[in-house]
Amino acid sequence: MTAINLNADVGESYGRFTVGNDEAMMKVIKSASIACGFHAGDPMVMAKAVSLARENGVSIGAHPSFHDIQGFGRRRIRMSGKEVEAMVAYQIGALAGIAAGAGLKVTHVKPHGALNNMAHEDAAYATAIARAIRAVDRDLIFVANACSEMVKAGQREGLRVAEEAYADRAYDDDGKLASRELPDAMITDPERAARQVLSFIEAGALVTRSGRKLPARIHTFCAHGDEATGVAVVSAVRDALEANGIRVVPLPELSF
Amino acid sequence: MTAINLNADVGESYGRFTVGNDEAMMKVIKSASIACGFHAGDPMVMAKAVSLARENGVSIGAHPSFHDIQGFGRRRIRMSGKEVEAMVAYQIGALAGIAAGAGLKVTHVKPHGALNNMAHEDAAYATAIARAIRAVDRDLIFVANACSEMVKAGQREGLRVAEEAYADRAYDDDGKLASRELPDAMITDPERAARQVLSFIEAGALVTRSGRKLPARIHTFCAHGDEATGVAVVSAVRDALEANGIRVVPLPELSF
Amino acid sequence: MTAINLNADVGESYGRFTVGNDEAMMKVIKSASIACGFHAGDPMVMAKAVSLARENGVSIGAHPSFHDIQGFGRRRIRMSGKEVEAMVAYQIGALAGIAAGAGLKVTHVKPHGALNNMAHEDAAYATAIARAIRAVDRDLIFVANACSEMVKAGQREGLRVAEEAYADRAYDDDGKLASRELPDAMITDPERAARQVLSFIEAGALVTRSGRKLPARIHTFCAHGDEATGVAVVSAVRDALEANGIRVVPLPELSF
Amino acid sequence: MTAINLNADVGESYGRFTVGNDEAMMKVIKSASIACGFHAGDPMVMAKAVSLARENGVSIGAHPSFHDIQGFGRRRIRMSGKEVEAMVAYQIGALAGIAAGAGLKVTHVKPHGALNNMAHEDAAYATAIARAIRAVDRDLIFVANACSEMVKAGQREGLRVAEEAYADRAYDDDGKLASRELPDAMITDPERAARQVLSFIEAGALVTRSGRKLPARIHTFCAHGDEATGVAVVSAVRDALEANGIRVVPLPELSF
Repeated sequence: MTAINLNADVGESYGRFTVGNDEAMMKVIKSASIACGFHAGDPMVMAKAVSLARENGVSIGAHPSFHDIQGFGRRRIRMSGKEVEAMVAYQIGALAGIAAGAGLKVTHVKPHGALNNMAHEDAAYATAIARAIRAVDRDLIFVANACSEMVKAGQREGLRVAEEAYADRAYDDDGKLASRELPDAMITDPERAARQVLSFIEAGALVTRSGRKLPARIHTFCAHGDEATGVAVVSAVRDALEANGIRVVPLPELSF
Repeated sequence: MTAINLNADVGESYGRFTVGNDEAMMKVIKSASIACGFHAGDPMVMAKAVSLARENGVSIGAHPSFHDIQGFGRRRIRMSGKEVEAMVAYQIGALAGIAAGAGLKVTHVKPHGALNNMAHEDAAYATAIARAIRAVDRDLIFVANACSEMVKAGQREGLRVAEEAYADRAYDDDGKLASRELPDAMITDPERAARQVLSFIEAGALVTRSGRKLPARIHTFCAHGDEATGVAVVSAVRDALEANGIRVVPLPELSF
Repeated sequence: MTAINLNADVGESYGRFTVGNDEAMMKVIKSASIACGFHAGDPMVMAKAVSLARENGVSIGAHPSFHDIQGFGRRRIRMSGKEVEAMVAYQIGALAGIAAGAGLKVTHVKPHGALNNMAHEDAAYATAIARAIRAVDRDLIFVANACSEMVKAGQREGLRVAEEAYADRAYDDDGKLASRELPDAMITDPERAARQVLSFIEAGALVTRSGRKLPARIHTFCAHGDEATGVAVVSAVRDALEANGIRVVPLPELSF
Repeated sequence: MTAINLNADVGESYGRFTVGNDEAMMKVIKSASIACGFHAGDPMVMAKAVSLARENGVSIGAHPSFHDIQGFGRRRIRMSGKEVEAMVAYQIGALAGIAAGAGLKVTHVKPHGALNNMAHEDAAYATAIARAIRAVDRDLIFVANACSEMVKAGQREGLRVAEEAYADRAYDDDGKLASRELPDAMITDPERAARQVLSFIEAGALVTRSGRKLPARIHTFCAHGDEATGVAVVSAVRDALEANGIRVVPLPELSF
């Protein structure tokens, strides 16, 4: 492997409610997954995130969510596949509308929060998301959790799928993120995050908390922009990748 | 004049809350201004409206609004020009995302409710809307109240502007719609609406309640889809136009 | 049995979005479960419902829901018991604030939609609702589906519990409402609804679609105010009850 | 003057979006104006604020707002007096519902943001708020900007009115807060805030930026809890008051 992507979730403020440090994060990532107004990210916050992405040569993607500002998109909401499909298409389009003003194109889509968690294991949700992406623009890259139903659904729908692993989260043996309630689920130490990333690349796999290896072709690593340690984690990961001769590039520059 | 457009506001239901009769309305209009989720129109409602438009050969446009479901977008909300611009670009994009799934393109934009009323007389709001339209796609047609600041702003920004008059509303001498609180402000009699349309065309002007003529090149007539009489009004107007040798066509087929 | 209650869900309009016919419904019911702004019912709609209740001698209750206008409170949202408790207390209080202006007191609480469905079978949700009721006012009557976890939770918390059955819905053998997707789940024929009510009273039980009897002491029957046939159903039920010598009274006049 | 109140706006977080430092602020103030879910403050945030108030012997009040999470209640929304009245009654009740769980009573009401600004100068809005307060509970104290229409409306409606001045904001000669856009409008230096408070008390007036004195009987001083310097400002004000022999007490302990 000679090139990989680093992405983070940005634009997660809402009105006067501020989350994360987008200015700093945009300097270290190569792709930004931008909230689209459903869990965070009103139009002004989105426009600001797009503008920062342009200044920093960062590619942009939509980060669609259930419509739940109060729950930050982290509460599971039951809806039909058709509803999910329309909801995701709406949000991709909304970001494209904002991005047009800055002369940028949306190049990837990555589901957020509870929608992501549900689509990880539920083929109907995964397929609905993949279909929404294909309907809006079949050149969009689907950023999907490695080892998830989303990877399969994206491939079935003929999309380019970027398999994603988290630099700052521990994994369970079923390939899911360990619950945030477990003491070691969140990796806030930048050096430990960098070691996790290198170990995943070396193994060609997610390495779980128990040491098990789940084979995956990882295209992109992510860290949480809403964590206080997010920027430090991403910086350490980027330094470790570059020190190991791996170029860190925007998603559209990867080969799939 | 040999061709004109008829449009109506559609897709104004929200979840289980039903407004208007889109199925019937889509059979008589030629262009549909579709609510974009801010005053009405969740993604499923939008997808349904787009699908009906395709079935009926109706061109589609975004009908952006202040974010106010409870107020149906009819309450004035003070925000900056930059906020208005981002808010409108977001909604145009959102509809484009939904429309892509049906293989349709958004071809016009028409502001809704209080946003429309404020932009009628406020050059800053009118300019913000025009800039949002131009930023998203400079080929979009700006449907603007005849004799409003929006017409001027659209022309300054180099957009095609379709000047609009209402078939079912009386006009004041300043070119604004008479207040809904006046007894004769709403025209619910289809024949009276048809007569108003023909009189405006003959005069090349809006004819106000007092009989004054405000010169305007009217490209499109609108009736309110959320009124019980909306479909009957539009049907009568269409029949009257066609009986007078005027073709009724989608907005993109007009010349500007 | 010599007295029973009839209730309906009212105040389910929202802004310009109109649902049901509260004026007519208020003339036939004895208790009104009023939406509290989370699935429907903005403050003006609530004030109007309270005013109609006062005019008609109808007792009022809060009809709390998940916060989901778009989904009309019918989508399941996962949240903790503590969140449910605060959410329900908030809505009871909100209605009490509105009712105070009309000199009325809130005398019952009945959960709405998906919240009701989840609490039917989930003791944690049922307990959270019961605790919220007790915390706000221990004299409030908890209107709970017959044969549900809510009945048990309410009794454990020392509340008066009014067991409820639906006049216009068929029941499954587990005591839950048959899915709306089944052809005979909704009873829209007033005579059939009246027969169901009398059969439940005679049996001292819910009688399910298969004919099984689930013993229950039913204090109140409900019909859906948002159905076109709601008023006719409730009228027929009321006539049938009175013809059989059963008085129909407001909830606070029942003995528990 | 031997006793005065200090209040701050608290409970202005929303879901995962955090604003202010309620734990620290509750240790220095004597009365808390708690957001009621319309500009901030979901039910869980409200319950936490109420709990902190109880622990610290702080009296609580409702801080009602326009329904505008994204705008933090700072955008002017045009609605009728009847709508304002219902909206305020709803929010007072909602807080009362939450507070009941902690055994606390709501003892004051103070409008937030744009609603406060509009009611400052608009007698119709001021009267609507006063009527909502009186309707819910005529013993509630109306915390109103000194020299505003709200003071007059509260007195006309027979309410106890606590006239309020800001420790951390400069005043214009018309008695309104100087625009936040002016360089010296916000007072972030605790010592300067303390001096302003003492000068107002000594003068028995608001002292404006130009030095003009607007006579007012000030019952309570406020500082903004959402400012980083809020706690330091309130602490300095409290120390200065106590050093000058003025007791700082909860609102219900003042005489009116």
